[in-house]
Amino acid sequence: MHIDQLSVAELSTQLDSVLKQYSALKELNLALDLTRGKPCSEQVALSDALDGILQGNYLAENGTDVRNYGGLEGLAEARALFSRVLNTPPEETFVGGNSSLTLMYNTIDFALTEGLSGPPSAWGNNDTVKFLCPTPGYDRHFAICEHLGIEMIAVPMLGTGPDMDRIERLVKEDPLIKGLWCVPRFSNPTGGVYSDETVERIARLGLIAGDHFIVMWDNAYAVHTLYDDASSLMPIRDLCYKYGTMDNLFQFGSTSKITFAGAGVAFLASSEENLTALKQHLALQTIGPDKVNQLRHVRFLANPETLAEHMTAHAAIIRPRFECVLNTLKYELSNSGMGAWSSPRGGYFVSFNTMPGLAKKVVKLAESIGVKLTPAGATFPYSEDPQDTNIRLSPTFPHLEDVKAAINAFVICVKLASIEHCLQRKR
Amino acid sequence: MHIDQLSVAELSTQLDSVLKQYSALKELNLALDLTRGKPCSEQVALSDALDGILQGNYLAENGTDVRNYGGLEGLAEARALFSRVLNTPPEETFVGGNSSLTLMYNTIDFALTEGLSGPPSAWGNNDTVKFLCPTPGYDRHFAICEHLGIEMIAVPMLGTGPDMDRIERLVKEDPLIKGLWCVPRFSNPTGGVYSDETVERIARLGLIAGDHFIVMWDNAYAVHTLYDDASSLMPIRDLCYKYGTMDNLFQFGSTSKITFAGAGVAFLASSEENLTALKQHLALQTIGPDKVNQLRHVRFLANPETLAEHMTAHAAIIRPRFECVLNTLKYELSNSGMGAWSSPRGGYFVSFNTMPGLAKKVVKLAESIGVKLTPAGATFPYSEDPQDTNIRLSPTFPHLEDVKAAINAFVICVKLASIEHCLQRKR
Repeated sequence: MHIDQLSVAELSTQLDSVLKQYSALKELNLALDLTRGKPCSEQVALSDALDGILQGNYLAENGTDVRNYGGLEGLAEARALFSRVLNTPPEETFVGGNSSLTLMYNTIDFALTEGLSGPPSAWGNNDTVKFLCPTPGYDRHFAICEHLGIEMIAVPMLGTGPDMDRIERLVKEDPLIKGLWCVPRFSNPTGGVYSDETVERIARLGLIAGDHFIVMWDNAYAVHTLYDDASSLMPIRDLCYKYGTMDNLFQFGSTSKITFAGAGVAFLASSEENLTALKQHLALQTIGPDKVNQLRHVRFLANPETLAEHMTAHAAIIRPRFECVLNTLKYELSNSGMGAWSSPRGGYFVSFNTMPGLAKKVVKLAESIGVKLTPAGATFPYSEDPQDTNIRLSPTFPHLEDVKAAINAFVICVKLASIEHCLQRKR
Repeated sequence: MHIDQLSVAELSTQLDSVLKQYSALKELNLALDLTRGKPCSEQVALSDALDGILQGNYLAENGTDVRNYGGLEGLAEARALFSRVLNTPPEETFVGGNSSLTLMYNTIDFALTEGLSGPPSAWGNNDTVKFLCPTPGYDRHFAICEHLGIEMIAVPMLGTGPDMDRIERLVKEDPLIKGLWCVPRFSNPTGGVYSDETVERIARLGLIAGDHFIVMWDNAYAVHTLYDDASSLMPIRDLCYKYGTMDNLFQFGSTSKITFAGAGVAFLASSEENLTALKQHLALQTIGPDKVNQLRHVRFLANPETLAEHMTAHAAIIRPRFECVLNTLKYELSNSGMGAWSSPRGGYFVSFNTMPGLAKKVVKLAESIGVKLTPAGATFPYSEDPQDTNIRLSPTFPHLEDVKAAINAFVICVKLASIEHCLQRKR
């Protein structure tokens, strides 16, 4: 029954029951963790063959000895393979080191301090620089902005992706808005896939935004489907090409959740003009990426078909964890009015919205019984969720039985917070 | 005979002879290259066992699964091993990604924009920031300064290291001097090793310099000896500890010239306070370094003794190349007055000084006959060698026969430029 329809007496009875369950959980001294968007051991073990795969052959196809310096843009065959993940031409794709976050940071730092088209274009020439941040979103994106002094404007995520009406209005009105963060497929944390219309409207933003506006297209979960029927993403590069907005687009990806987390390779795609400029910036910081690891990845993942099979094996491992979370939420909270959640078809997260004002409380209640959740607010700029409602659940890393125990405990905490809240309101 | 003692007639005769040799070389269509401080194929092959060394065991000593995220400061056993290279305690040593240049760039960027001890300490709060650059030195150090708008002050390298009288005077006089670049053992390009007195005086600079002064101690060739009798380097960390200047010191190193160039691991050591601050900066740019590659390196290099044996094998490969260069220079140019050069006992370079004003000419003459040399001036801030005299020779990468051909051609170019110059002066 919906919580709003319960009488004070009924709420009190339920509270007693939930409090008992909560106390019982406390006795168990749980130590569970749903905070981390990390692959589990079985997942990373899928790529154990990486070490040793070179079998003494350290030469790339064009004869490059990957054991030596050189090649800031990455190995040719790595560019060819990973451009297929981003749906970009190889010549518009760089393959770098182990972290796409580094590539994103460098891109923004470069645009800010040096300028995408030379010093006069540096965002930093303005006193204020602003970025659009679809929320809930990825905390590390927001941390980069905060660190570099970029003002963040939250825009809501809809079922189709970010609210494009609002975004178009904002970029038209305010030329100090220089960027938009996007996780277009299996968004962090909502799990949504941007609709074709949304992608097309984002590709056109460069036509209506002020100078040197960029879309930070973090396609971190490009191939990370849980089900075969997962929506595909319209390739934005071709649309940008069509609209002449190639210079407004930076795409990112990595193999951190394909092979080894933090020991894979990251990639970046943009216009050839942008890449040429960025390369000069990167050349000051490094002599080049680890080409040996790039060659390992190329030999291991081989081609889009092998990569797809590999991702199917990942899905088989983590799908039960997602289903455990979603089935429990459905069984325990459907039509209860105590929360709403996403049902992702890929990616690494389930996004849960409590009744307004209860997210922090739920996280605290869970912590008190040994269940760590991502801090409430983390999915918003400046860690401020104005409704105090969003909680990111990450079910991939713990064992299935721990996911089960954790989500059951989570549900008790949601019920406890919700019922107490309603009782207070009614009394 | 010394060039100054030759008559015009003698010079003219020699010129004819050298011009003939030069023309003959031109006919050969050489394609030789002494520009690159890169290990050769035989050297990198010494580490071929790296790939596959894990044999499916991806767990660190403390149980950390290196295939997953985490650990910004590097793997414990990697910190233990590489702290031995820098002569630092493991807890004061970070192990990072594949590039020490990245660590250096990040350190300076951090001190400049955020401050080693919080925002009020940021160098960027001053309109001008200056660095001391011992010359000849490493072009990539200078490029970082130039890129970040740091004014460079050249100080001469002496046989004992940088001119400390001058450095001490400068840092006392000018509080805007915030740093000093050092390659303390087998300097790039002179090959010299800083004397104990120099190291001690550098360790004390923090006591006389203005606020937040740092020594950038790039110990890139810490273990890269060519001969067993090579001078050792006094460990600067212990001196800084003694003088209370630990916060003024940042040390760097990497395995790029130990295992694979650009596919090894880099490391950084400083005070624990500095590391804690730097870590917060790095956390925004990356989730952590490639621990899989760190574990490979630990399993492969194992301990200081194994590492030393490995370096002996390197020396055996490149020593003949150095000896070829040095023997040729000695045989052809000793007491000629046409040049002076270093005789390094380790490292990657030979530093050659032409007669004043002739370095650019020699490089150009060499280029015209197919011998690429590092651009004259590259070893100076802003690429400006005030005497136009220094040329960096890098004999490690080409095959021995190519080194031989290249250095013979180089000698001809030096003779040609020198004789022409003397003739012009005398006529």
